[in-house]
Amino acid sequence: MPIQGRPATVRLTAFTDYGLRMLMRMASAPARAFTTAELAAEFGLSRHHLTKIMLRLGRAGIVATRRGGGGGALLARPPAEIRLGEVVRLLEDGQAPALCLAPGPGAACGLDGRCRLKGRLRSAEAAFLADLDRASLADIALPALHPA
Amino acid sequence: MPIQGRPATVRLTAFTDYGLRMLMRMASAPARAFTTAELAAEFGLSRHHLTKIMLRLGRAGIVATRRGGGGGALLARPPAEIRLGEVVRLLEDGQAPALCLAPGPGAACGLDGRCRLKGRLRSAEAAFLADLDRASLADIALPALHPA
Repeated sequence: MPIQGRPATVRLTAFTDYGLRMLMRMASAPARAFTTAELAAEFGLSRHHLTKIMLRLGRAGIVATRRGGGGGALLARPPAEIRLGEVVRLLEDGQAPALCLAPGPGAACGLDGRCRLKGRLRSAEAAFLADLDRASLADIALPALHPA
Repeated sequence: MPIQGRPATVRLTAFTDYGLRMLMRMASAPARAFTTAELAAEFGLSRHHLTKIMLRLGRAGIVATRRGGGGGALLARPPAEIRLGEVVRLLEDGQAPALCLAPGPGAACGLDGRCRLKGRLRSAEAAFLADLDRASLADIALPALHPA
């Protein structure tokens, strides 16, 4: 259940959120190849979106592709060896940025060089990712939502 | 300068961002009262926005109001006693939520009760805020941008 009235500092993009769901599912059956069509149907998400995410995961060597009948994508490494921080860093890279930590017009605040907050936020972000790195995909593996 | 090509996991709302700027400025002259009009002019931000933020900071006992000539808002406690995590928790509370950690329709993902990611994100968020709590407003105090 959602939790009322708590701070929500952690904002993952939909890209990262969907990517994590796919990987959670794949981690529950690491020997099996999954198609994006099948994952899209299982989670009720857009196949187009998932295909883009899968491409990025493939380029980074987190998933590999198996061709032919029963083909699809599967984890390229054992789930216990894929840390959550690694996945989040990869999926968040280049996505809608933090207000002042990232490039783009929204990032300009006029305090450049005088802002000591930036370093503090960077340190806190590192703590966030380091904490995620304490867990792996094996820790969040998700069995089939609608077992056949 | 903004930093290219790095992950941007930390997404503070504009509400939090502006609140931090106001507090940074106030921390550089803790004995002085600031008006929202003056802070809005200095940072080039909407006075309406800053007034709403100041109200929340006042209710939480982070700023106090001084009436009359030379009146305005000032820090209610020494800057070294106001931790950044406290400020961020307060300002982020009830703002645009994380995808799966917060209430609202966007939070529904259909994995309730089976999602082991949520606990990991909560732990990482706690690490983020704990790291911010290692610093105080005194550490990020910001002198006047345009000294008279």
